[in-house]
Amino acid sequence: MSYFRPNIDQLAGYVPGEQPQVGKFIKLNTNENPYRASPAVARAITTALENGLQRYPDPLATAFRQRASALYGFPPEWILATNGSDEVLTLVTRAFVGEGELLRLPYPSYILYKTLAELQGARSEEIAFEGDWSLGDKFAAAAQGLKLAFLPNPNSPSGTVLSPERVLELAEQLPCPLLVDEAYVDFAETNCLELVKRSDKILVSRSLSKSYALAGLRFGYVFAQPHVIAGLVKLKDSYNCDALSIAGATAAIDDQAWLAETRAKIIATRGRMTERLRSLGFAPVESQANFVWAPHPAQPVKPLFEGLKQRQILVRYMNYAGWGDGLRISVGTDEQIDACLDVLAKLM
Amino acid sequence: MSYFRPNIDQLAGYVPGEQPQVGKFIKLNTNENPYRASPAVARAITTALENGLQRYPDPLATAFRQRASALYGFPPEWILATNGSDEVLTLVTRAFVGEGELLRLPYPSYILYKTLAELQGARSEEIAFEGDWSLGDKFAAAAQGLKLAFLPNPNSPSGTVLSPERVLELAEQLPCPLLVDEAYVDFAETNCLELVKRSDKILVSRSLSKSYALAGLRFGYVFAQPHVIAGLVKLKDSYNCDALSIAGATAAIDDQAWLAETRAKIIATRGRMTERLRSLGFAPVESQANFVWAPHPAQPVKPLFEGLKQRQILVRYMNYAGWGDGLRISVGTDEQIDACLDVLAKLM
Repeated sequence: MSYFRPNIDQLAGYVPGEQPQVGKFIKLNTNENPYRASPAVARAITTALENGLQRYPDPLATAFRQRASALYGFPPEWILATNGSDEVLTLVTRAFVGEGELLRLPYPSYILYKTLAELQGARSEEIAFEGDWSLGDKFAAAAQGLKLAFLPNPNSPSGTVLSPERVLELAEQLPCPLLVDEAYVDFAETNCLELVKRSDKILVSRSLSKSYALAGLRFGYVFAQPHVIAGLVKLKDSYNCDALSIAGATAAIDDQAWLAETRAKIIATRGRMTERLRSLGFAPVESQANFVWAPHPAQPVKPLFEGLKQRQILVRYMNYAGWGDGLRISVGTDEQIDACLDVLAKLM
Repeated sequence: MSYFRPNIDQLAGYVPGEQPQVGKFIKLNTNENPYRASPAVARAITTALENGLQRYPDPLATAFRQRASALYGFPPEWILATNGSDEVLTLVTRAFVGEGELLRLPYPSYILYKTLAELQGARSEEIAFEGDWSLGDKFAAAAQGLKLAFLPNPNSPSGTVLSPERVLELAEQLPCPLLVDEAYVDFAETNCLELVKRSDKILVSRSLSKSYALAGLRFGYVFAQPHVIAGLVKLKDSYNCDALSIAGATAAIDDQAWLAETRAKIIATRGRMTERLRSLGFAPVESQANFVWAPHPAQPVKPLFEGLKQRQILVRYMNYAGWGDGLRISVGTDEQIDACLDVLAKLM
């Protein structure tokens, strides 16, 4: 017999993109940064390591909060550091959505959101994007038990964004908090950070995994009004971030020159890649993230995904019921993308 | 207005022991190890750092699981690695206990357990230890909605243990899973690991924070039968342990000579400390952990706690309603403990 709650038993569980631990792969499937993090990160971690690990870390990651405060112009009390921005998503679900209540998300979008509702024993409701990846007022409509909405912006898999003005409109109509998941925002032209000052219903989460090339470090953070942050602090594990990741993350956001340079390289590669995908007959969506969503109007793409995989090139194949399928290809280095597209050209 | 679930709003939140980030303190309040971790840990972390952090870590910490498997004689599928053993406690609460259902814990014990029930919107029930720190059958009795029991063994603040035989008896009577929290077990003479093979109701959690001097790294793990581990995997964040902590933790448990030596030093200091506390009129409980619980039959101890704090010596003052108060003093180095006890002697 099982002692698990029924909602856990019924759940297949979220399966993240493949992370092969051995073998040489060109890995374009989980939106990692192809470049190494700022050298300042390793220096800061080495110093923290020399100071010893026998003490508990700072429960609130004060050093990071202060640096982020100076960088973004929010007082530290408006910022909570987390073990990856995945932890933000889990915390807000647990904070706002009770059993049987409703969580809203756009579709197609980050598959994890739905799993988080299921883990909580809550319901979820998907609101489809329009054909041009805009989001109608239906996303903001009242509904029985609606307690939280997730909005990835830029969205995955599309890489598209809603404008801050549109996000504010939706938030103001919504009867519940809106978590704007900005994991990819450093590759976009706009962001929603300033909206946090306008409404205590708006939370904005960030991640160091993609833009700062620190997926292995697990560090995220969320901006919200201080009473909202204080509520989330109650829920998090006492020491959710370790001493090394706090040191590394603080050094990472301190090196904005590194970010600007890496961002420019990735955006340039993204442009070349989009153009070449188009020349292969794909219908790539103009992306503001570090990946490109590439459906093909005339050809099944699953065999292409499999052919790439046979040649040790991993991309993500996604098939959204009622929407169609495509390849989501992370922006790697120019060399990686050339290798990927050369193989694709041969497979087609 | 608040958008938080009512159980979150009503909650004061768990307050961990003080972690002063500046100033020179003798820190005997949060059961940290006074010694530095094995040098193998820093070497392994440095190597992982050189390999880069741009990739996501192994979601299941396979390297750690395999090393733990060899060390403890359990297949890897019986082990789950977590972001500190606090994450185990949160995961099992979310896995087994629904809203309004019941979580059982002994009293006095780790205060966090009750907070976890409250965060989940669940009820909790405290069963008092007997005067000799044994635990009656009442702890195993059926009750409406009972879905999980926590048993810290060694217990905090007492440092006492129940024998594996007694734990098995309780587990067999219980209608729900029993999480045996062995955060302090490396300082004890017995442990309950083998019980996991006897019953899928028994889970045993461990921590590297105390015995391996790695509180700053955040690494814990839990043993349970494979179908139970598989259920917990569904609940955890995809990448709950970072690449550096996986490398460091694997190296830490690989250095059993370091553990044996450190353990011997701490147990020797614990013995001296217990004797001297007794000579000061305290009634210290014989501890199998890296702290000593010291009530005083004849004198209020809160002023002693405050006097120590004024002299930059932090211990934990705890006052359990219906049970009494005392000082919980972590086992430091001989020098730290002498300094603490010299001040105590002067204050009395």
